[in-house]
Amino acid sequence: MARVLTPRADDFPRWYQDVIAKAELADNGPVRGTMVIRPTGYAIWERMVDEMDARIKAAGSQNAYFPLFIPESYLRREAEHVEGFSPELAVVTHGGGKQLSEPVVVRPTSETVIGEFMAKWVSSYRDLPLLLNQWANVVRWELRPRIFLRTSEFLWQEGHTAHATEADARAYARRILHDVYEDFMVNVLAMPVIVGRKTARERFAGATNTYTLEGMMGDGKALQMGTSHELGTNFAKAFDIEYSSKEGGRELCWTTSWGSSTRMLGGMIMCHGDDNGLRVPPQAAAVQAVVTVVKDGDQVIATATKLRDALSDAGVRVILDDRVDTPFGRRAVDAELKGYPVRVEVGPRDLATGNVTLVTRYDGVKQPLPLDQAVDAVTNALRATQENLLTEARTRREENTAEVSTVDEAIEASTAGWARLPWSAVGVEGENKANAQGVTVRCL
Amino acid sequence: MARVLTPRADDFPRWYQDVIAKAELADNGPVRGTMVIRPTGYAIWERMVDEMDARIKAAGSQNAYFPLFIPESYLRREAEHVEGFSPELAVVTHGGGKQLSEPVVVRPTSETVIGEFMAKWVSSYRDLPLLLNQWANVVRWELRPRIFLRTSEFLWQEGHTAHATEADARAYARRILHDVYEDFMVNVLAMPVIVGRKTARERFAGATNTYTLEGMMGDGKALQMGTSHELGTNFAKAFDIEYSSKEGGRELCWTTSWGSSTRMLGGMIMCHGDDNGLRVPPQAAAVQAVVTVVKDGDQVIATATKLRDALSDAGVRVILDDRVDTPFGRRAVDAELKGYPVRVEVGPRDLATGNVTLVTRYDGVKQPLPLDQAVDAVTNALRATQENLLTEARTRREENTAEVSTVDEAIEASTAGWARLPWSAVGVEGENKANAQGVTVRCL
Ligand SMILES: [Zn+2]
Ligand SMILES: [Zn+2]
Repeated sequence: MARVLTPRADDFPRWYQDVIAKAELADNGPVRGTMVIRPTGYAIWERMVDEMDARIKAAGSQNAYFPLFIPESYLRREAEHVEGFSPELAVVTHGGGKQLSEPVVVRPTSETVIGEFMAKWVSSYRDLPLLLNQWANVVRWELRPRIFLRTSEFLWQEGHTAHATEADARAYARRILHDVYEDFMVNVLAMPVIVGRKTARERFAGATNTYTLEGMMGDGKALQMGTSHELGTNFAKAFDIEYSSKEGGRELCWTTSWGSSTRMLGGMIMCHGDDNGLRVPPQAAAVQAVVTVVKDGDQVIATATKLRDALSDAGVRVILDDRVDTPFGRRAVDAELKGYPVRVEVGPRDLATGNVTLVTRYDGVKQPLPLDQAVDAVTNALRATQENLLTEARTRREENTAEVSTVDEAIEASTAGWARLPWSAVGVEGENKANAQGVTVRCL
Repeated sequence: MARVLTPRADDFPRWYQDVIAKAELADNGPVRGTMVIRPTGYAIWERMVDEMDARIKAAGSQNAYFPLFIPESYLRREAEHVEGFSPELAVVTHGGGKQLSEPVVVRPTSETVIGEFMAKWVSSYRDLPLLLNQWANVVRWELRPRIFLRTSEFLWQEGHTAHATEADARAYARRILHDVYEDFMVNVLAMPVIVGRKTARERFAGATNTYTLEGMMGDGKALQMGTSHELGTNFAKAFDIEYSSKEGGRELCWTTSWGSSTRMLGGMIMCHGDDNGLRVPPQAAAVQAVVTVVKDGDQVIATATKLRDALSDAGVRVILDDRVDTPFGRRAVDAELKGYPVRVEVGPRDLATGNVTLVTRYDGVKQPLPLDQAVDAVTNALRATQENLLTEARTRREENTAEVSTVDEAIEASTAGWARLPWSAVGVEGENKANAQGVTVRCL
């Protein structure tokens, strides 16, 4: 079989681009840095959104929608915030055929506009906590775009909450971190993320504390998969988000924000993909199983169709591939590229003896099995695949994380993976030194 | 009870604004013409999206995502299209801290960029039909904005498909019209829309044929709830969307596009709302029933909680209102404003005799009933409400539609509602005359 993808060991970034193109996940958009998410990629994103959204709602947040356009003046109100974002902004200067009197910014994030409305909606302690989330597109101009990882426009969810006390805000930022993000990443994406805090230097603009979840990719590098921030009273001061307490005094709210984006798609690809393409964890897969008609023959398509229906009735997200006028080999390669966890091949020769062939994408193993055991075999294979992908990623992370005790050792170890060492051995000075070598302190 | 809303008969547009504010559906955004959709409004929109999305997928279309930013030059390629949109465009001139070499437009709709990618993805008749849909925000600068009905930014779905023949394209545009839009509007929104074609004058820019669904609002006026367009080969020519046929020749594709938006929320409000607030059809309601604790007492909250759980187990989307420190009357008014279809009041006095009170929002009727019949009573009331809202809207439409035979009669009838007359009695000249009187030909 001819190689469709650049091997990961040869050139990991190139492999990543190849997978995205060949699995038909996405294309570059016409405006530099933007992307077109194709149906195969978008269907996985929809699965992610469904799973995340259910967890966000279970944590008590409600969805809302705030405008794409933000007055430029809003961003200036929180000084650190504007500094953090100004080089990345897209600015609308013309609307409705005329120059605008005040330019508007395309949201890079919505802290400011949501802060403005929180101030209107919160008046008493009874209105707290106010727990909001939105699913939206945001724009941050990217000079070195890479699909899903760094794009000028991306899709995300951003949560914004207001609380009566610092302790409440901290507890909620952590609840989202663990019950929403970590739970989703570990149990749906099968990614054993490391969860911790960022150093002061790596914090979000305007945050007093930033929590992060870091995943290890197939090349041993780290990818930030999501963040949850305590914003202290910084935004409350800038936007007058105040409440009257039980005792009748006026108090500032403590706010949080937290976000995760289509970048998670990039993380999932780079964590689990192999030299044959994607390996999508079954919990995240829009297509968990494909029933492939090898070639036409007596009762073959009818049997495959019945099997598809039986799998669907058993709760499997399944499609039928009966495009028998396309060569079987090409369809098999396509299914591997797209990373469907399980393939059931139905062909006239096997069927004559009452068998079909089960192919698990995770390890490439093919096994014949009686048709009437196929539904059980598929559901078992899906469960095993989900577990195995997580175990494999955890093993890689452990093998590629060196326990060290000095910054110099950490810098050396980082050429091959991660290094773990006590923060007391690093400090701000050690962080400076590591940064100078292109090594960042990812997570405390 | 003090009036919370301007009565509809006094000032219908004012009533509409009042409902949106008092039911906490939405607010005006800081940039003129934009809106903030609050959790109560957004939850209904999420229900609409779920129902629409399931129907769109059942019709064979796949979701994808195309960029917010479109090169200005794309819009110029299809001459009629740019003419239709240019006064409404928002233009980004600065990005990443610099002036852009080519300004980019914030998408007013995505025909052009999707056309560009269809041309890449379609090569043979085997790739057809190509059936795409996206859920996205779009921007069309509005000089006279009204929340949900005309906003500078709104949320919508836009479908874009390419077909081998004109007949296929027409059949699909009609399939979406009936199986997706009409079915959703009638069976979920309980709106008896009139389905038909637009006159040449009222067509979408670049379309050869536009189908429309028109709903009648509480004031007898029409609202366009969705449109489905045949685009002929206009966009295929402009973007080179071609395929090689079975016979080996190069052929132009026939394309369609179809859209529906947050405007449907406005239509639902104006179709069913009454002087006490919203009446949300149960199929569209994020909250179908609220179990209200009248006041605390022996076993009251425990009983209400159990009833909430029993309703939830029965598949009802239900919430518990146990905010007993807020006056009961205020909570009842709020539930009416928000249009929850059914309320079950649980109070100590009723409960002493084993009863609760069922309140149906549709007709305002209150009836006591034994606690153990509450689940059945609620599910029956939801079914009846859905039917009754549709019947009521249909009756109003019929009563307010005059059968006339001349344009003059139609103009007169339009002051109170709609007029139906043969197109042969109108023609382009009749349409000119009607337009001059502020009357439009909505639907053929
Ligand atoms: Zn945890
Ligand atoms: Zn129909």
